[in-house]
Amino acid sequence: MENLSAPPPPDLAALRAAMAAHAIDAVLIPSADPHLSEYLPARWQGRQQLSGFTGSVGTLIVTADFAGVWTDARYWDQAAVELAGSGIELMKIPSGASLLYIDWLAARLHPGQSVAVDHRVLGLATARLLADALSARGITLRVDLDLLDAVWTDRPGLPEAAVFEHAAPYASESRAARLATVRAAIAALGADRHFMSTLDDLAWLFNLRGADVPFNPVFLAHALVTPDAATVFVGAGKVAPELVARLADDGVAIAPYEDAAAALAALPAGAVLLIDPRRITAGMRDAVPAAVTVVEAINPSTLAKSKKSAADVAHVRATMEQDGAALCEFFSWLEPRLLDTRRPPLTELDVDTHICAARARRPGFVSPSFGTIAGFNANGAVMHYRATEQAHADIEGDGMLLIDSGGQYLGGTTDITRVVPVGTPSAAQRRDFTLVLKGMIALSSAQFPRGTRSPLLDALARAPIWAAGVDYGHGTGHGVGYFLNVHEGPQSISPTTAPEPHTAMEPGMITSIEPGIYKPGRWGIRIENLVLNVDAGSTEFGQFLRFETLTLCPIDTRCLELALLRADERAWLNDYHQQVRSRLSAHVDGAARAWLDLRTEAI
Amino acid sequence: MENLSAPPPPDLAALRAAMAAHAIDAVLIPSADPHLSEYLPARWQGRQQLSGFTGSVGTLIVTADFAGVWTDARYWDQAAVELAGSGIELMKIPSGASLLYIDWLAARLHPGQSVAVDHRVLGLATARLLADALSARGITLRVDLDLLDAVWTDRPGLPEAAVFEHAAPYASESRAARLATVRAAIAALGADRHFMSTLDDLAWLFNLRGADVPFNPVFLAHALVTPDAATVFVGAGKVAPELVARLADDGVAIAPYEDAAAALAALPAGAVLLIDPRRITAGMRDAVPAAVTVVEAINPSTLAKSKKSAADVAHVRATMEQDGAALCEFFSWLEPRLLDTRRPPLTELDVDTHICAARARRPGFVSPSFGTIAGFNANGAVMHYRATEQAHADIEGDGMLLIDSGGQYLGGTTDITRVVPVGTPSAAQRRDFTLVLKGMIALSSAQFPRGTRSPLLDALARAPIWAAGVDYGHGTGHGVGYFLNVHEGPQSISPTTAPEPHTAMEPGMITSIEPGIYKPGRWGIRIENLVLNVDAGSTEFGQFLRFETLTLCPIDTRCLELALLRADERAWLNDYHQQVRSRLSAHVDGAARAWLDLRTEAI
Repeated sequence: MENLSAPPPPDLAALRAAMAAHAIDAVLIPSADPHLSEYLPARWQGRQQLSGFTGSVGTLIVTADFAGVWTDARYWDQAAVELAGSGIELMKIPSGASLLYIDWLAARLHPGQSVAVDHRVLGLATARLLADALSARGITLRVDLDLLDAVWTDRPGLPEAAVFEHAAPYASESRAARLATVRAAIAALGADRHFMSTLDDLAWLFNLRGADVPFNPVFLAHALVTPDAATVFVGAGKVAPELVARLADDGVAIAPYEDAAAALAALPAGAVLLIDPRRITAGMRDAVPAAVTVVEAINPSTLAKSKKSAADVAHVRATMEQDGAALCEFFSWLEPRLLDTRRPPLTELDVDTHICAARARRPGFVSPSFGTIAGFNANGAVMHYRATEQAHADIEGDGMLLIDSGGQYLGGTTDITRVVPVGTPSAAQRRDFTLVLKGMIALSSAQFPRGTRSPLLDALARAPIWAAGVDYGHGTGHGVGYFLNVHEGPQSISPTTAPEPHTAMEPGMITSIEPGIYKPGRWGIRIENLVLNVDAGSTEFGQFLRFETLTLCPIDTRCLELALLRADERAWLNDYHQQVRSRLSAHVDGAARAWLDLRTEAI
Repeated sequence: MENLSAPPPPDLAALRAAMAAHAIDAVLIPSADPHLSEYLPARWQGRQQLSGFTGSVGTLIVTADFAGVWTDARYWDQAAVELAGSGIELMKIPSGASLLYIDWLAARLHPGQSVAVDHRVLGLATARLLADALSARGITLRVDLDLLDAVWTDRPGLPEAAVFEHAAPYASESRAARLATVRAAIAALGADRHFMSTLDDLAWLFNLRGADVPFNPVFLAHALVTPDAATVFVGAGKVAPELVARLADDGVAIAPYEDAAAALAALPAGAVLLIDPRRITAGMRDAVPAAVTVVEAINPSTLAKSKKSAADVAHVRATMEQDGAALCEFFSWLEPRLLDTRRPPLTELDVDTHICAARARRPGFVSPSFGTIAGFNANGAVMHYRATEQAHADIEGDGMLLIDSGGQYLGGTTDITRVVPVGTPSAAQRRDFTLVLKGMIALSSAQFPRGTRSPLLDALARAPIWAAGVDYGHGTGHGVGYFLNVHEGPQSISPTTAPEPHTAMEPGMITSIEPGIYKPGRWGIRIENLVLNVDAGSTEFGQFLRFETLTLCPIDTRCLELALLRADERAWLNDYHQQVRSRLSAHVDGAARAWLDLRTEAI
């Protein structure tokens, strides 16, 4: 890392003055927006603004004499740098203890003291845990104060990107059909109305997309669905008149974004409202009148959108060919460039620039699906590393270059990690790479009963890595959207996800498999493919599923320690490479084609 | 199966009359006692008494016009037979939905109706779920009525077996040391008192044992532990005066069994009481005065007793040699007897008789640790099959004989399943046996980080079986006590156990590994060993654990389809057999020694 500049020290004095004025002893600022999104519009980056810690997940707590940011292992290194000298403590959250700050608050404060948190950005499920923990200790919870707003004088406004339609042929199902599916699920749960706030759920249900946050093609909105109508609460002017008209044809009305809570407050007595406590805020729940019956369940759209249709999958396969071809072009440029000693060394930023450019030349490309992670050696071991103008490494000498990148295309969302050997990787690096590949192969070739709860599959990828006394501090896989969020549920191949019924594996789900090994200060290795749940036939024990690997890109065999691979593992890799070659050949030529042929040679 | 006689039809009329007299619309009879035990004294076998279904797990619900028993897949076949013609419906509980009957009650009853359940035999955690589900529907829950007692005129009394001391050298730690451990944990949780009802927790804490229920060497009691005293509530006359005196030396007093709830009711205001909501009844919780603060956590003794000391483990290893030697004697008798066509065929009951007799000849033997499961062909596929005088099979012809058995010894508890080929097993039977062995080997040879939550290891044993389109409907492994219950927590290698923090794998835990394949109506195969969590060294990623296989008994290689085994799997089996031979040779001679040598030959 070089050119590191310290962030400006945050100023918490104004916040503490506001706390004193309202007799508040602690203020909690979650990293959340009214939609409980992963990527937050600037308006809701209050924790970043106040603390200087820019990681995507973290919770700030400020008292009169303490300030701390709670974050998990992925961000400890980054937070330590960004918080240094700020007077704000880094509070490390161990794996699986994401709500540890609640215990801290309950233990640290005294009966009679008060905690403030804005319920407009607090998930309902979290709010309940917080309220229970504090009330058990006689501590008051105030949810109606937005102290942040009072002290953040130049707070950004709402994003204003236009909403557009995800149309045929890429949208394989009509808006009317999706509304019918969701309405049937609402009725089956005994409800007659459904309120939704999660942006990918809205985008899927209405076949709409937007650009209000980086990387996720979503737009800020809430929605209320009734048996014969639906209302989308969205910023004025973001939906063009002709699209408003098309929505109206499907019984979908547009209303101002800020009217959502009022619409809940106006629900008639006797209405039965379906909400998902993990997918709406406490503020929205608090707006519901007492005379309305509330039914809680996972959003029907979350379950439905995870099961991609055959038509969706056909688009994803075609998109993977384009994405793989872009990567062939990128890698065939990268490898000789790394060897070219007449020019200055490449930097991690150059990797980002060129990989995005290669994708941008492909049909259907819309944007990257997340910020490229290009980490050389020690930077590869920083789990959510992002090279910046201020801090990035030159790629020179010997080692391993980890590249995790992806694209949003009209026909699908991609997410892939590969590791490139630079100079001569060490035997230890090749051992780690091979162990990671063994984990990838073990899970990729698994077959399992339909309905297996996805977290229970995690150990299959980890076992070959554990056998060497190594582990990795992140889940093995996350669901992936269809031209939607690169992280979506409900499935999650992770030891920290509770294996609840909604995590069951179903045909059509797309999930990442991405084991890794991280040696802090030395190197990081991760190999990531996206896989599709496909039917593996039925027996007297029911239906089984297997994974079809969707991602098409060579896995660099120069990084392997061949003696560590079993015969069946070599066969898997050779079969994969044969398929990569046959699927991508038609989409590349020249140097990229030669690179594809070279890197898919059998071992 | 032969000689099957139908159970007497149950008479629910008296119960329904009692319900009507108390204006109760539904009565719930769980299979539970005041200690939430797995094996119930006859006094609390009300569900068996009323329904005729004798399986160990089942819940009876009776309304004016309906009666049903909810039970899981292990018991469906048995329950179908036992409930036939009774008018009581078999309500099948799918895997992982053990509280389904709560949903049924909430859905079936109407607002204003009443459900009765005796809170003296209802777990607190379950009671809360029940109360929440019913109150949400406006249904009243009455917990103060024991309608069963009113209609069960010849209800058995309390068991009266004597309590005895588990003494040195087998008890490796003093009662005083264990009390100190538990008191430290109570204090660490912010409490000053702890109430316990689970029988194995009491037996462990006080180094006492009993014989109040079959198979588990426990005695009926509750206990209250304070910083400087402890009271055991136990039936009059069960503890001999000299043992009472020795307990008094450690500050442990004896009080009448029926005074436990009154002792809770007499707790002083301001006391802070630790209870485990999964390990005490709602009735005991209801006895606690409102002025007492209640802290809830898993019983400290449950965590402590799962981690066997080095001295305990040394006794277990010696016990496994005796148990293995007994099995050599048994199998060396069984095999020629199966071939002896001049005598009538053996029955499954003969297997039980002879295996218990072989164990009984070994030093330290106390009793079987559960009812022997000896199931030939189709009976082997009935998961909790128990041959009876009325219903059992002759062992003749071709097939597979599954034998699951175990012993209680002063130096440990054993539990082992082996399958014996009879005549000529089919290729399909050998394939299934080999798949099960592959699952056993995959998990037995795993290494994993200390603290891995045990349910997450389940898939490692299942993956080779899933690969063939097969699955099994039970968990892969359960914790095992030390001269205590053959099923104990907190670890559980099962997909239906929530991977909560207390399920973490720690050094010294003893767990079963027992994958299986069951082909209903044809055959059942299970292979079961007990394994010990041992240190596998520490790396920069922390401490790792591996399994030491404790069980010593050949796995019959005549049942194998060798072509399905990888080289590393063969090596595992040969290593295991070499160890079995070297550890058992000194303990057997004659035919048993010859059998041991033959059945441990390398493949």
